[in-house]
Amino acid sequence: MAERQIMRTLIVETPAGPGNFAKVATAIGNAMGDIGDIKTIKITTLSTVRDISVYCGSEQILEDVVEAVRSIGEGILVHAVSDEVLKAHEGGKIHMQSKIDVRSLADLRKVYTPGVAEVCTAIEKDPEKARYFTSIGNTVAIVTDGTAILGLGNIGPVAGMPVMEGKAVLFDQFVGISGVPILLDTSDVDEVVNTVKHIHQGYGAILLEDIGSPHCFEIEERLKAELPIPVMHDDQHGTAVVTLAAVLSACWAAGVEPENAVIGQVGLGAAGLAICRMLMAYGAGEVYGLDRNEEAKERLRSYDGKTLDTLEELMQTCDIVIATTGVPGLIKPEMVRQGQIILALSNPHPEIKPEDALEAGAAYAADGRMINNVLGFPGIFRGALDAGAKTITYPMLIAAAEAIVYHTKPGDLVPHALDPQVHMVVAKAVENAASK
Amino acid sequence: MAERQIMRTLIVETPAGPGNFAKVATAIGNAMGDIGDIKTIKITTLSTVRDISVYCGSEQILEDVVEAVRSIGEGILVHAVSDEVLKAHEGGKIHMQSKIDVRSLADLRKVYTPGVAEVCTAIEKDPEKARYFTSIGNTVAIVTDGTAILGLGNIGPVAGMPVMEGKAVLFDQFVGISGVPILLDTSDVDEVVNTVKHIHQGYGAILLEDIGSPHCFEIEERLKAELPIPVMHDDQHGTAVVTLAAVLSACWAAGVEPENAVIGQVGLGAAGLAICRMLMAYGAGEVYGLDRNEEAKERLRSYDGKTLDTLEELMQTCDIVIATTGVPGLIKPEMVRQGQIILALSNPHPEIKPEDALEAGAAYAADGRMINNVLGFPGIFRGALDAGAKTITYPMLIAAAEAIVYHTKPGDLVPHALDPQVHMVVAKAVENAASK
Repeated sequence: MAERQIMRTLIVETPAGPGNFAKVATAIGNAMGDIGDIKTIKITTLSTVRDISVYCGSEQILEDVVEAVRSIGEGILVHAVSDEVLKAHEGGKIHMQSKIDVRSLADLRKVYTPGVAEVCTAIEKDPEKARYFTSIGNTVAIVTDGTAILGLGNIGPVAGMPVMEGKAVLFDQFVGISGVPILLDTSDVDEVVNTVKHIHQGYGAILLEDIGSPHCFEIEERLKAELPIPVMHDDQHGTAVVTLAAVLSACWAAGVEPENAVIGQVGLGAAGLAICRMLMAYGAGEVYGLDRNEEAKERLRSYDGKTLDTLEELMQTCDIVIATTGVPGLIKPEMVRQGQIILALSNPHPEIKPEDALEAGAAYAADGRMINNVLGFPGIFRGALDAGAKTITYPMLIAAAEAIVYHTKPGDLVPHALDPQVHMVVAKAVENAASK
Repeated sequence: MAERQIMRTLIVETPAGPGNFAKVATAIGNAMGDIGDIKTIKITTLSTVRDISVYCGSEQILEDVVEAVRSIGEGILVHAVSDEVLKAHEGGKIHMQSKIDVRSLADLRKVYTPGVAEVCTAIEKDPEKARYFTSIGNTVAIVTDGTAILGLGNIGPVAGMPVMEGKAVLFDQFVGISGVPILLDTSDVDEVVNTVKHIHQGYGAILLEDIGSPHCFEIEERLKAELPIPVMHDDQHGTAVVTLAAVLSACWAAGVEPENAVIGQVGLGAAGLAICRMLMAYGAGEVYGLDRNEEAKERLRSYDGKTLDTLEELMQTCDIVIATTGVPGLIKPEMVRQGQIILALSNPHPEIKPEDALEAGAAYAADGRMINNVLGFPGIFRGALDAGAKTITYPMLIAAAEAIVYHTKPGDLVPHALDPQVHMVVAKAVENAASK
């Protein structure tokens, strides 16, 4: 469900006087650029200079946008096209920071030799003490093999590092977890499992991230079975948690009872399969999955899931339809059933636009822009670590989804990703569910 | 050369009036406690309360010290014995910190999706860009299997974690490197090498730490040969760099030319072997190694080193003697030759006390307390990363040792570990040597 967009900041000078900025905005819009934040950086009696953030679907659109603004003329100038995104990533986004300032020899003797020997001995005598005297219990490994980075595919773990660092940024900023990227140079299931097992003692939990399908399934299941700490593949279960929350919100809004609803999932990749399993674990009325790939359908059936054969059949059968196929416009308006709930989650181009679905008779429709993965994983891991959980279970994940729903404002599908409280609410719910 | 000591803070109240504190200090000293920092925390007209840091060689000595102060009487009170060391390690000493505050949706879209996709794509097209847009080039993995933690031996990687975190603290505080502990649950050479290889792409360099002998030798050599990034076992080469610096300083002080000197190394463990190899690479006159273990001597000979058979022979033959055996009092005063330089480096109890060596006729003598490993590795790795070096070579290590010597104040053997400049001086020297 990841979008792929280019963001640039245009530094634009417009002559003083009303209407000039509107011309710039119109030119950008006509050229298919989306305007984001705008900051006024200089005002004189003659002109105004602004930083205008613009999101573009491709390099070509970006060129068109810049050209469109340049060709307005009338004293309107593009001074620069600055790449704030690249700038934000310069030097990397994370750093392993000391929590202690080492200023004196006494500090050094405390945190390093000889003092540290005492702490080591205390842990050797009672390994449980590692929770208190090391960062292990608050550290999550963010493990990728780089085979399914966002929507970019198999670009390798190094090119995927900015995403792993992004996850670590969000861990730190939202829930105070120390997130450590681990870049694997292999996708062989045995080698991945062995490597993660050999290094697992340094972490309180393992987040599997952007690992491709189908090898992600076996990797996760084996690590879950063999490691004594929580393991979760975010692209599966993190996404499924946030999607379940969105489904529950949508049901609420449309007056549908999920326990009695027939739900269809279109697309059985990592996310789609996990969404089916999550809905089944939640106790939804009936759940059906659909995929072009017979192996993917077989996989769902191996978890006791039910499958259908055609999109038409699924659209006919289901009260709620969720799509995660990455195929824009897959769902035609004429397929929509009256009163259906449709979540077409592929980004940036959904399987059916919400307005088209509503016009075709859907009771409720949304696309993936509103559903942010960021709502799930930070609180889930915070809660699991706080509970000292050895695994992340469906009751914990369902508790996370329900906490997200309870925290959603009326009219919204899920809370805002920067809601300062949502992650702690999720964490508490997960911790409580783990303790049961 | 690691010390093993207990540090406690005694909170002691003494009645006002001269002489009372001296009684406390005397009692502590008589009970074999070493007094460290003292802070006055409260003064009234009647009494003074102080935090007194005390280092003790064992739990028994600590008990004796507390009992000795308590039994002074005369209004002198021990209010508490506080464990500042354990306190400093609570919750661990490191945290993976975001360099960016995520406060707005625009921040989130910049550091995470959709903005991050652009950075990933830029790296996919030109992998060299990972140096600029990720933290990889500034991150060093601190890898241990926990088999030789300080002087504590094979206590396992989790009990060794406080040392790895301590290294990360020093990396951050001294040279701004992001140090990431990696705890291995295996000491099998093949498995260690494979595991580190599978995760190496996330790091700019690998620091091997507290890995036991002899498996440390093969692990380091294979990783150096097979990885395109610098790999260094600190217990070998970091120690050897600081020891070479101390030898050069001692030669300077005693008027001996190392190029013409016969040097003997007693003890051919990880540190001892590396010291011999470093002295040979430096171009010392003649270098001889000695160990009880025939295999260790054979290993030195495999590097074209020369060995001797008895300590007596070595003491007779050598102008400079270095000992890293961990055996207190191994060198008897009657073995000392007139004008010899003796560095007995085992901590806390040297092979011969410097005062005894001097009395027996040595021209120069020192023990391990003055030689701190901390002087080497931060600058060595900073310099290697800054140079974009693919390996750490002897010329780089020798440049580090010489930089340490040049930065030593007259009369000292090496600089103070908290000298704010020494690490940057070492880094620059290493970077220059790498670029040659």
